[in-house]
Order: sequence, then structure tokens, then C-alpha cells
Amino acid sequence: MEKLIALRELMKNRNIDAYIIFSNDAHSSEYVADYWKSREWFSGFTGSAGTVVVLQDQVGLWTDGRYFIQAENQLIGSEIKLFKMGEPNIPKIKDFLSEKLPHGGCVGFDGRTITMSDFDEIKETLTNKGISYSYNEDLLNELWEERPLMPTSPAFEHEPCFAGLSAAEKLRIVREKMETHKIEAYLVVALDDIAWLLNIRGNDVLYTPVVYSYALITKNEAHVFIDLNKVEDFSCKLKTQGFVLHNYNELPAHIKNLNNCSVYFNPKKTNVLLAESIPSNCKILDDHKIDILPLLKAAKSEAELKNIRNAYLKDSVVIVKLLKWLDESDVSTLTEDSVCAKLIELRKEQKHYLENSFNTIAAYGANAAMAHYHHEGEGATLRPEGFLLIDTGAQYLDGTTDTTRTIALGKISEEMKLDFTMVLKGHIALNKVIFPKGAIGHTLDMIARQPVLQTKKNYLHGTGHGIGYCLSVHEGPHSISLSIKDTTELVSGMLVSNEPALYEAGLYGIRTENVLVVRELNDKLLCFENLTFCPIDLRAVDFALLTNEEKEYLEEYHKKTCEILAPFLSDEEKTWLQKFKFKEETGKFS
Amino acid sequence: MEKLIALRELMKNRNIDAYIIFSNDAHSSEYVADYWKSREWFSGFTGSAGTVVVLQDQVGLWTDGRYFIQAENQLIGSEIKLFKMGEPNIPKIKDFLSEKLPHGGCVGFDGRTITMSDFDEIKETLTNKGISYSYNEDLLNELWEERPLMPTSPAFEHEPCFAGLSAAEKLRIVREKMETHKIEAYLVVALDDIAWLLNIRGNDVLYTPVVYSYALITKNEAHVFIDLNKVEDFSCKLKTQGFVLHNYNELPAHIKNLNNCSVYFNPKKTNVLLAESIPSNCKILDDHKIDILPLLKAAKSEAELKNIRNAYLKDSVVIVKLLKWLDESDVSTLTEDSVCAKLIELRKEQKHYLENSFNTIAAYGANAAMAHYHHEGEGATLRPEGFLLIDTGAQYLDGTTDTTRTIALGKISEEMKLDFTMVLKGHIALNKVIFPKGAIGHTLDMIARQPVLQTKKNYLHGTGHGIGYCLSVHEGPHSISLSIKDTTELVSGMLVSNEPALYEAGLYGIRTENVLVVRELNDKLLCFENLTFCPIDLRAVDFALLTNEEKEYLEEYHKKTCEILAPFLSDEEKTWLQKFKFKEETGKFS
Repeated sequence: MEKLIALRELMKNRNIDAYIIFSNDAHSSEYVADYWKSREWFSGFTGSAGTVVVLQDQVGLWTDGRYFIQAENQLIGSEIKLFKMGEPNIPKIKDFLSEKLPHGGCVGFDGRTITMSDFDEIKETLTNKGISYSYNEDLLNELWEERPLMPTSPAFEHEPCFAGLSAAEKLRIVREKMETHKIEAYLVVALDDIAWLLNIRGNDVLYTPVVYSYALITKNEAHVFIDLNKVEDFSCKLKTQGFVLHNYNELPAHIKNLNNCSVYFNPKKTNVLLAESIPSNCKILDDHKIDILPLLKAAKSEAELKNIRNAYLKDSVVIVKLLKWLDESDVSTLTEDSVCAKLIELRKEQKHYLENSFNTIAAYGANAAMAHYHHEGEGATLRPEGFLLIDTGAQYLDGTTDTTRTIALGKISEEMKLDFTMVLKGHIALNKVIFPKGAIGHTLDMIARQPVLQTKKNYLHGTGHGIGYCLSVHEGPHSISLSIKDTTELVSGMLVSNEPALYEAGLYGIRTENVLVVRELNDKLLCFENLTFCPIDLRAVDFALLTNEEKEYLEEYHKKTCEILAPFLSDEEKTWLQKFKFKEETGKFS
Repeated sequence: MEKLIALRELMKNRNIDAYIIFSNDAHSSEYVADYWKSREWFSGFTGSAGTVVVLQDQVGLWTDGRYFIQAENQLIGSEIKLFKMGEPNIPKIKDFLSEKLPHGGCVGFDGRTITMSDFDEIKETLTNKGISYSYNEDLLNELWEERPLMPTSPAFEHEPCFAGLSAAEKLRIVREKMETHKIEAYLVVALDDIAWLLNIRGNDVLYTPVVYSYALITKNEAHVFIDLNKVEDFSCKLKTQGFVLHNYNELPAHIKNLNNCSVYFNPKKTNVLLAESIPSNCKILDDHKIDILPLLKAAKSEAELKNIRNAYLKDSVVIVKLLKWLDESDVSTLTEDSVCAKLIELRKEQKHYLENSFNTIAAYGANAAMAHYHHEGEGATLRPEGFLLIDTGAQYLDGTTDTTRTIALGKISEEMKLDFTMVLKGHIALNKVIFPKGAIGHTLDMIARQPVLQTKKNYLHGTGHGIGYCLSVHEGPHSISLSIKDTTELVSGMLVSNEPALYEAGLYGIRTENVLVVRELNDKLLCFENLTFCPIDLRAVDFALLTNEEKEYLEEYHKKTCEILAPFLSDEEKTWLQKFKFKEETGKFS
């Protein structure tokens, strides 16, 4: 309440009619440092997505379906009204503003925390209302006395044995592409793009080993803006590779010095304050589809893939050990949280492990029906019945992993078995798919989704996302989704997750996820190579619903899993894994 | 040669450095009246697609893979060089022009025969070359002494029992949509859009029963530009429905009178001459995705669908009779042409038959490996072996049909059987597909293509196209294709063809095509209803490769075909059709 009164006072002083508090950092990162959590500080709502709009007589928080319940609870006692995005009759922020703002009104916000694409959308809706925008107004900074500082922990080199190409070589390729697209200055804001280019990693945010930084690349110069203390140990190496280092906050001055050249920025990632500071005599190129670094880093090199295969073997071993532990435990003594803790314990035994790549989802029973569930405290206690869904991944120096398995802890219903089998059929179909070069991931989603749809059910998320290399677990620009937003052609070396699913609200959730890499089958066709080797719970499969090809796939998959993981398992673990082998003598699994 | 010399003389007089001869009419029609066939008259090349570019020292014809052989033959003895589009190192026209034209040069063409989209593409490539465009230059008209006149045959009303909604009601809906999109004047150029809106049909071009016409619709007025003689018989009715009739050539004057309003035209259909004549004080709206009439007419009404189902029954009867005739003939006495002739003979027996909806493809053996083959003269003589591919459709007053069947005339190889079976598996999968509302046809193509791809083969065309209602057999805006060009969501009532295929150059071609209509399965999901009932040649199927579901589909399909066609068949025909029924006693078909 105090914060609200103080903010409204500031708004009055600056003639701001509406003040918007976004959740982004200045780089559109998926995970942000505490310094950027102003919306959380202001509203008390801790979800990852949410926007607050403050007027003199109203204040609202917009968030999506993942967070309705949490936001309702966390807003209790505040004046902030919850706007449930996507629900009928709930206005979008832009339409709310259009209705509430007076003609000629002023909208204020911290221009570092909204992308040009999102800003353009608001502007378009408010056109004809004579609105002015004050985007250099970090009003909360004036109120937030104990605001956390920007992170300061040191960065480290992603060494040549992991990185493959040197930073100098990557820079050369970037410049080649710049010439193709007639880009004279390339503004890079995404933290993972910069980390990949420079072959550095860091500890600035949770789950993604990146460092707060920018880059501005021209034909002859490559400027990097970063806390110089973080890179002290290897700044010489970066300089010899062709980079000029500056302090993090010096980018705006460099942008203002651009003169009469063509400047590229990705409008879906670049914040308003930066984009608007480009001098007007420059030619703006801002087609998000041609952003150079995302496309380069998405198609993993053979050197990267060699490492990535190894990281996936390590994490497959972790999950095999976890599943064995679960299988042999009295699950009634376990909670969702103890499953997550066990995973960290097991991962710490693996070489080059850094941290988890996202907050592990261990969701028991009805909890798994919420696709983005995360337990609080100990979470639910497990019972020897129903499904446990585990979605987990790790950051290793040699790769980023992401795996989901759904485990039958005991008795399951016939419908659960049917649903599990349909999800599995979709998962297998996508694993085996063959597609022509030039195809967009968009065209593959229905292959994985079709078996579930045949039962008149559906899952309301995409089937797959790209994955970084010791970087973000959700990495663009490609995906496998029904949405038309992404039009990136799949090319050899791209990683994608394969995660069809099914959620029955209040009952259970099922998801089966491997990670695949796009490979050339021949000069015209592409296919997938599977990277994840963890057994699939055959107790939950209705084999009568599988075709012979699908049964063969399962047999081969588990046979290969046993073989490929054997060198990393104890005899006892190997014996346990034999459970998933097809037995010729009985004609059955297990 | 004479024509070329004369044209170059005219070009010199008008200071035109490059003159382009396109193949379109002024409405971007698929089939055009002879009046518009200036490229054919000039070059001697009779294919449906091709563009001639004339310079003082060079002249070229650009055409696509369907026509390479034909064009080579037809250009023999002329100075015109063939540019095989899509082949390596063959420049596009725009790049050719960019290379050859002097700075500040002039490009001339008949601006009625190129769309704004295509023109914009050329302009973009030639930007920075200071090129001027002279788009009101129908130079060939000055040379072409015996140019055919525009067609004059009368139009006719598409009567209420066929049309469903009245023209007045359709006009009301169009105006509602115009308001939604803030369109004050809607320029309609596509002949099928106008025919559908006015509930008229005609005989101006082959295969598509349309009438040369334009419309210009505002909130209070609906102007139609058409040869008034053609509509004499029912002009009163059109007037009472709210339309004002003008002569065909009076549109430009009306466009010039537009004043200070928002004008919509579809840039992919509207020619340069019209689009450029819109006064500059008007606001241009030209997003092809919101074109109102294509979307309205694509989603067939229940009244239209009732008629369409009937038309498909009639044409299914025709094809059953044809297949029986083939089965019982000594095929060595038949040619590709006699198959086409037989189809016309059979169709003439059907009520409300107008004409074929395209030039029937009857392609024997290796001829079928050319997807767009059409025989000349008698065509190939059939033999009792290998495949005969028949792709054929008709215009009935109650519907437009399109069906393909591939028939084994005798012995076929194991590979042919495998390929036929894979095409069939894809065809069945698309027939049975279930998909969420909001999905684009783009996301369904891979479902039909996947079985063929699994054999490491592919077909290089889309899987399906929309189909008109007693209108064009290829009707947008939707399609089922891997190409991203179309982003139209499939909605209930849309027709699509389902035609996976496989072509082995020099050997054989396989295609199996039914037409489907999008239907609601429930409030969230869509599925397809099948409209085409013609037996599939089970002699070409390898049943070992089919799943139980696929076998059941075939059994059901042929059972339903027998039942639904029975009222229209003789006893002898019904007995013949029993061949395709699954026999419980033997566990086999036939």
C-alpha cells in the first residue's frame, strides 16, 4: 500500500497517467537476476510472468493460467486487481489502457524491461489517442531502497575442448552473415547469444550459466559490454580474439555514436530504451527471422554434438539411478521434494555438472495435471499407486539436458494406461519421423499429437522446443509447435525436445520427453537422432494398442539403453535395467 | 521473328528497355480467355505458365519444370532462349533484369496482367537502379491483328436451390466484415469471388464457370462491372438485390472517383493498373490474409454442402462405371484419350453436368511420373500391366469434383505395390486425422506424407488444395501443404483434397485423391468428412504393411461405397462393386 501511494505520487509529479511494471530484464532473459524483480517487489506476486499497470484510481496485475491460483493468494490484502489473461471478457493490457487513458495521456515505464515488438503492439492499439510514452522512467528505483545489486560473481571461459570453434572463428562467421544481410552494425542483447559467441559462461542468473552483457559488432570492431571484473582472468584472451571490452553500462554511448549505417537488432529481444537510442540517420533492420547468432548457435557443430551426447549419457545414468531408487524404495516414505533432492545428489556425482537447467518438476497424482507445477516445501507424499511425473534437466559444461518420464508407482486405471500409451505412440512417431529439408518444426507437431487427438483429447502446449549448449534449456529460434509464430527451417544439428503429453485436471498428468538432434538422412531428407536413454515405464503401456513397428522401437530403445549406459552402471544397476528388455522366450517385456 | 522485330521497334519508339509479356488475365484467373493469351501468340509456347522478357539484344522465356520439354520443342527455330526456373544457375526474371537493365532504364508491360505482389517483388530487386515502369503499355495489342475478342456468351443465374444464400444476404455479410476491418471500399477482382457473391455462373473460360467482371463495394453501394449483354436476362434481379450494373470497362473511372476513404484490395490478385489508379488520398489496406470473399466462400454453408455431397455421389458413380468398363475391356484396345472420352460420355448422363473442372489426366505407365501430364492426340495405348493414373473432375451446378485413382491394369512389381501402399497409408491417415480448432492446413501435410517419407521417397507438391462450389477446382485461401505461404485456419465447411502421391521418373506415378470437408467433432476439435466414394484398387495393396485400423478403414470405406452408390447403379454394376468388399469367410478382399 505504501509503495502504491508513493508510486502514484511520483506519477503525478512526472505527469504519468499509467505506469507499467514489466517482469523482464534488459535482455529478455527467461530467468532474471534479483535486481530486475521489481514487479515481484512491488506486488508481492512471485510468479515468473506478470505485469502490473498502475493508474491513479486502479491497479491491476495481468498473468497467465499457470499462475491464477498463486497470484490470487499472493494478492490477498492488496489493492491490486487480478486480470486472468485468456479468460473470457478479460481485456488485454493494451485494450485496458486504450479504454482508461485520457486522450493525450502519458504512459511511463522502464524502457529496459519491454521489447520493441511488445511496445509496437501497445503503440498500435493506442494509435489515434495522442498518447506519449515516457520510457526512461524507472520510478521504482526511487522507492526501492534495498534493491539488490546486479550480480557480480566471476564469469569463466567455456574451454576449447567444450566450445569447439574459437570466439575469433565465430566472430568471422557472424561477420560473413552480416555482409550477406547488408548489416553494418549488429546489436546483440540476448545473454546466451553473447555467451556462445565469446565462449564464456557465468553465474548471474539461476539455471542458465550466462553473464549480463551486450555486444555491438561492426565489420572491423567487436565491442563487448560487461562487468570487467567478471572477465578479468581471461580478458586478454578475448582481446586477442578481436573483442574490445567495455563496462556494462557503456553501450548506450556507443549506440549514439553510430552514424549513417545499417543497424540490425532483434525486435523480439531488444529493449525499447536501446532500440530508440539508435540515431535517426541509421537504417534500421529488424526482421527477427534473420537474427544471426540464434541461427548459428541453434545448429550444433559436430564438436558440440560429441560433447552433448556425452552429457546426455551422464544425465541418463542419473535418471536410471533415480528410477531404480524409486522402484526399490517404499514410496510412502518419499515426497516430491525428496525426489528433487535425490536428483541433485545423483548429478553431483557426474563430471562437469554445474546446476539444474530448470526447477525440477516432481509432480505426484493430480499435481501433474498442472503442466508447470512446482511443489512448495516437501510437496505431496508419494503413494504406491498412480503416476509420478518427473521433468528434469541439468547444466553440464558439455551440454544442457531435459528429460521427462512418467512412472506408475502402483495400480493405474485403464484410462491412464490408454492415455500413457497414446502419448508414447506420439513420442515414438516423432522420434522416427523423416522430413524433407526446408521443413519448419511447425509441420511436425501434428505427428506427435495425433494419437492423443485420436482419443479426442489434446495437450495445450507445443510438442518441442530447442535446447542450448550449456545455455538456456529453452532456446530458439526453432520449435515444434502448432503455432505459426516460428517459421525457422529445421537444419542438421538443431536440438529439439519431443514431449507429447496429456493432462486430466484433478486426476493425473502424463508426459514423455526425450531430446533429439536433427540429422541428414540423405541429400534431400532429414531425420532425428535420439540423445536421451532412460527406460520408459512399460507397466503403463497397453501393448495391444501398439503396432509391430512401435513394439520394435521400444525393444530397440531399451536394448540400446542397456548397452550404451552399461559402462557407467554397477552390476546391480545393469541387472535392474534388464527389466526393460524384451524377452524372446516369453514374448513379453519385463 | 517478325513479331519480335516489330515489338523491338515499338519498344524503341516508347523508350522501353525491357518489355515483359505475362500469362495472366486482369483477374489472376487460373484459366484465361483467348483474348489474354498474348504470351502464347507471341512465343508459340502454349503451356499455362510462362513469361517472356524482351530486350533489344536478347529474348527469354521463363517457365517451370512441368513445361521444360514442351517449351524446348515449341521454341525450336525461334530466337527465344528458354530459362528453366528452379534449375541451378538460372536467374529469376527480376535478377535477370537487374543485371541487364541500364541504370535509369524503363520496363514496360501490360499492367493488367501482373499482380501488385509480383510487381512489388520486381521493384524491390530493382531498387537503387533508378528504373521507371511503364505499365500501361499493351504493345502486343498494336501488333496482334487477329486478337480474339473478349468472350460474349451469356451468364446464367446460379439458382436459389443451388446457391443457398441470396446475393443480397451475401452482400450484407460482406459489409459486416468490411466494418470489422474498417474497409470503406472493397475492390473485388477474382472472378470466382464475384460469381459466388452474385450467384451467377458463365462460360467465359474453360473449366471454371465464371464471368469476366469486377465489383466495387462500399457501405451503401455495390457496383458490378460486367458485359451487360451477358446478364440481360436477370439484371433486374441483381438490381433488386442491391447491385448497380456497369459495363466491364467502366471500373477505372469509378476507382478514380474514390475520395479520402480506406480501400481494400488483395495484392496477390489485383493487377497493377487497377491498384495504381487508386487516388493517393485513400488509405490502402492490402493484407491478403483478410480478403473477405475468399474466406466466406471457402467455408461452405450447410445448403451448399448438401448439394456438394450429391454432386460427389454423381461423380463417384461416373468413376465406378469407368473403372468397371476398364476392368472389363481389353485394355490393349484403349488409349489415354479413349479413357478421357469415356469419362465425358458417362458424365453427360448425370444431372446438372456442365463441363470438366480441368483437363482430365489419364496417364499410363511412365507418363504418370509427370504430375501434370496431359496426353496429345490419342496418347499412349494401354497394356494389361502397370499403373494407369486417372485424375479427373467435373463441374455440376451442385458442385465441383476432383478425384484421382491409380489402377493396376495387370502385373505390377513389388516396389510399385510398396509405393502404392505407402501412398494409401498417408491418404487414410489424413482422412482419419483429428485436429484442434485454429490449426492451419500446413500442420496436416506431414500426416499424409509420412508413410511415403518413411521409404525415403517424397512427392514434390502439396497434399491438398481447397475446391470451389461450381467454381474453381483449385480454390484458396487454405491448403494442406508444407509451404508456409498460406496461414489460413481450417474451419468447418472448408473442402480440401487429400492427394498424397509418388512419382518414379521414367517408370510410374501413383496418386490417390478424395475430397474431404472440415467438420466439427466437438467444441474444441475438428475432423474430416469424406465426400468421394470410389473403390481403391486393392490388387495394388500390400496388406501386410497395413495396421488393423487401416484395414478396417478400407473395409468400411468400400462397404459404405457399395451402400451409398447402390441406388444409382445397375445390378451388374453393384455386383462388380462387391469385389471391393471384405469377405469374412476368407478373411480377404476381392
